[in-house]
Amino acid sequence: MNIGRPLEFDPDQALHDAMHVFWCKGYEATSLQDLLKAMDLSKSSFYQTFGSKQQLFERCIGRYRESMATAMRERLDRAASGRQFIAEMFYAVADEPNGPVKPRGCLVMNTANEFAQRDPLVAEWVAQCVDRFKNIFQAAVQRAQQEGDIAADKDAAVLAHYLVSSMSGLKTMVKAGAGANTVKDIVRVILCALD
Amino acid sequence: MNIGRPLEFDPDQALHDAMHVFWCKGYEATSLQDLLKAMDLSKSSFYQTFGSKQQLFERCIGRYRESMATAMRERLDRAASGRQFIAEMFYAVADEPNGPVKPRGCLVMNTANEFAQRDPLVAEWVAQCVDRFKNIFQAAVQRAQQEGDIAADKDAAVLAHYLVSSMSGLKTMVKAGAGANTVKDIVRVILCALD
Repeated sequence: MNIGRPLEFDPDQALHDAMHVFWCKGYEATSLQDLLKAMDLSKSSFYQTFGSKQQLFERCIGRYRESMATAMRERLDRAASGRQFIAEMFYAVADEPNGPVKPRGCLVMNTANEFAQRDPLVAEWVAQCVDRFKNIFQAAVQRAQQEGDIAADKDAAVLAHYLVSSMSGLKTMVKAGAGANTVKDIVRVILCALD
Repeated sequence: MNIGRPLEFDPDQALHDAMHVFWCKGYEATSLQDLLKAMDLSKSSFYQTFGSKQQLFERCIGRYRESMATAMRERLDRAASGRQFIAEMFYAVADEPNGPVKPRGCLVMNTANEFAQRDPLVAEWVAQCVDRFKNIFQAAVQRAQQEGDIAADKDAAVLAHYLVSSMSGLKTMVKAGAGANTVKDIVRVILCALD
């Protein structure tokens, strides 16, 4: 730690910038050089502040989890209904193929695909994130059940797992080249399962 | 090419071995050293026969596509019904969490997640593979429609895209730590959409 000397950079902004590099390129393909450039840091500041590439990645995953979970929660709170929130989350993916940035998928699911199975520590972070997202979908399903839009006898936790799985598959389809119309077609079928 | 001198190794076996390395580790994390070791090749034989890591990867993707498509076709031909084939394909994923090898997902979808969006050539291979798998699911849906197990007025191509997307998501859930029971719960919901 830089005790007694003020940091000459904003660690929070640097973390944000690093997160976007990992999100676009994946863990393995991200070099130290990529990180230093994006974070505008010297090698010594990097190691002093963040320790290692893996330690930085853990912080990026944590930051992603918190910012995504907060955004989802706020969107759910603002939504006209639980069912509406779920539909909006899925139809938003149809904007990705023609969006201004190349589709990046979900950092957590990208990480699961890339190397969670090779590294027990990363597997643990991924499982925590999935659980977090699942809980928000579960809250949305329970709200929809109270609102009469999803049958009350359906298992909310099971539907929530299904929604996380479906979202992950859908985002991969976009990365595999699916266009907006194909995505919308798939979403209509995904949402059928809630009926 | 080794004109006039017989190859001292089996290129087909070497390709098979390389495919498994890429499948387990991903493209970026696979080093030339990993490949030479798995293929039991010298560096010169490697470059002489396969050209480059990327050219080898293209052949591995092609081989994966053909072997998966053939296996799926044979399974569909043997299946008691189109609907049964689809259910079997999905419930088989529930065996992965407790299987003898670590879940590797699908090489094509792993590739889409890892770098299809960064490389137009790889994006094209991935799109071709997805189309191939989609066509087999579409044949299964059409068979199920003829057999009266899926309503004839449903769009078989849309359901096929949904099944490819769902399979991709499900395999990612396994890599993200989902256990066999969670997978089976999700599969039950996925199959509901066919009703």
